[in-house]
Amino acid sequence: MTDNSDWFNAKYSEHVVLSIRIKERIFSTKSKYQKIEVLDSFEFGKVLALDDVINVTERDEFIYHEMLSHVPMFTHPSPGNVLVVGGGDGGVIREITKHSSLKRACLSEIDPEVVGVSEKYFPELSRSLGDPRVDLVFNNAADLIKSNQNIFDIIIVDSTDPIGAGEELFSLDFYKNCFRSLTHRGILCAQSESPFFDPDIVSRLYDIARQVFPIVRMYIAFMPSYVSGIWSFLYCSRHYDPINNFQAVRYNETPLKMNYYNDEIHKSSFALPSFIKKQFDL
Amino acid sequence: MTDNSDWFNAKYSEHVVLSIRIKERIFSTKSKYQKIEVLDSFEFGKVLALDDVINVTERDEFIYHEMLSHVPMFTHPSPGNVLVVGGGDGGVIREITKHSSLKRACLSEIDPEVVGVSEKYFPELSRSLGDPRVDLVFNNAADLIKSNQNIFDIIIVDSTDPIGAGEELFSLDFYKNCFRSLTHRGILCAQSESPFFDPDIVSRLYDIARQVFPIVRMYIAFMPSYVSGIWSFLYCSRHYDPINNFQAVRYNETPLKMNYYNDEIHKSSFALPSFIKKQFDL
Repeated sequence: MTDNSDWFNAKYSEHVVLSIRIKERIFSTKSKYQKIEVLDSFEFGKVLALDDVINVTERDEFIYHEMLSHVPMFTHPSPGNVLVVGGGDGGVIREITKHSSLKRACLSEIDPEVVGVSEKYFPELSRSLGDPRVDLVFNNAADLIKSNQNIFDIIIVDSTDPIGAGEELFSLDFYKNCFRSLTHRGILCAQSESPFFDPDIVSRLYDIARQVFPIVRMYIAFMPSYVSGIWSFLYCSRHYDPINNFQAVRYNETPLKMNYYNDEIHKSSFALPSFIKKQFDL
Repeated sequence: MTDNSDWFNAKYSEHVVLSIRIKERIFSTKSKYQKIEVLDSFEFGKVLALDDVINVTERDEFIYHEMLSHVPMFTHPSPGNVLVVGGGDGGVIREITKHSSLKRACLSEIDPEVVGVSEKYFPELSRSLGDPRVDLVFNNAADLIKSNQNIFDIIIVDSTDPIGAGEELFSLDFYKNCFRSLTHRGILCAQSESPFFDPDIVSRLYDIARQVFPIVRMYIAFMPSYVSGIWSFLYCSRHYDPINNFQAVRYNETPLKMNYYNDEIHKSSFALPSFIKKQFDL
C-alpha cells in the first residue's frame, strides 16, 4: 500500500491479495506446527492468522462456525457424542455446546498453542472450552479416530488448508477411519475450501468422500474474510439427508442465539450455483 | 505489494483492499462522467474499472448479470417491455434477450463511452447490444422515466455505486418515478451494494423502496470480485411475489444457458442470514 499504515496481506492466490489495515500486531509465535499471529485490524477486529492465512476474524467468524456446526447438529435427531477435529480456537465448541442434546464433545487439536492463544486473545471464541461436557485432547486426530469405532454421532472437521499439519485430514484413509468411528447414523461435516479459487482441492476432497460415504453433499456460505467470499462445506452422512431430516421441531422449540444460521439458511445453503454443480458433479 | 508486478488495488473500504495482479493495462480514458480503465488480470481475466472500482470482470460477471436479470424475468409471467438503467457494458441486455417473451428493451446509459469500451474490449458481454429488440438511449434515466408512465413490465437498475453519476439512482424521486413508469404488475430490481461493508447505503435504499413499493425484498449472491463477496439485490414489485410467482413452467420448458442462476438459486437467494434480516428489518 502507498501510505505508512501497517497492512496484513492475505494471499488468496499468486495473483490475488486481500490487504487489511492493522491497528496493532498483538502477538506472534512459531509453534511446533505453524506460525501463529494475532493482529488487531480496523475492519475485521482481532484476527488470528496461521501461516499467514486468515484463520479467524472477530467480525465474521460466527458465519463459519455456525454453518460448520449447526447444519449437522440440526440434521441429526439427537447428537450426543461429537468429535471436533482441529478447531482449537473453540468456535465450533461454542456452537455445539448450545445444543442441550450434547453429552460429550471431544476436541482433538494437534497444536496446544492455538488453544492458549485463543483463550488469551479471543475470549468470545474460546468461552465454552471449559464446558464440563468438553474434553480437550492434544493429539493428531487421524490417530485418535483409528482407535475409536462406532461411537461418534457427528464428526466436525475444522481443519486448516491442506498443507502442512492439515494435509492428512484431506486423505482417503482419514475419511475411511472417520466413517468407521461414526455411529451407523452418523454425520461428518468438514470445511472444504473455496470452490472458486481452490477447485482442485475441492474436487479431490469430494471424490474421496464419495468413495466412503453413501450421502455426500456440498453447502455454501458467505465468508468475507476468506478467499473469494464463497466458502464450501462438505456434508457426509451414513443415513440422514440434510434437507429431509432437518429437525424443524427442535429448531423451533429451542431457539439458540445465532447470527447467520437459521432454518431457511439451513436449506438454502444446499442450493448450489450451476457452475459449482457442474464443476463438482453435484 | 513487494515484487515488481503490476497490481490493481480495489479499495473495499478505508481499511480493506483487494489487490489483483495485472498482466497488462489495456486502455484508460476519462469520460465526461468517470475514469474508465480496461485491465487484463491473471485471475479474473479482463477487468472494467470505473473510477478505480471493479465494475466487471470476465471471470465472475455472469453471476451479477444473471442474478440481476433472471430473478425478475422469471417472476413476471410475460416480460415484454424492459427498461435497463445503466448497464452500458451490455451484460444485463445479454441476459434478458435470452427470453423469447421480450419484445423491447430500452438501455438507458448516461455514458456512451462505456458502451464503446465494452463493444471493443468485452465482446462476450456486449454481444447482444445489436439485438433488434434493443434500443440504446444515451441519456439520464432519471429524466427518461419521468416522461414514461405505465409502460415497463420490468425495470432493472444496473447502477454504479451511489457517488457521482450513480447518485440520483438511489433517490426517493427516482423510485417514485420508476413506480409510475411500471405497469400495474411491474417489477423493479436493482443492485443494492454489499450488506456487509455498506450497511448505511443498503439501509437508506431499502427505506426509500419501502416508501414506494408494496412488496420489497432482498436477495443475495456471491460476487468474488466485489466488496466482501456478498452482493445484495433489491426486489421491488407492485404485485408479484418472487417466490410464489416464480415461473416454474416457463423455466423448465425453455432452458436458457446460465452458469449461476437456476430454479433452486432463484428461491434460495431470498433466504437471508440472520444478521442481514435483523440489520435491515427484512
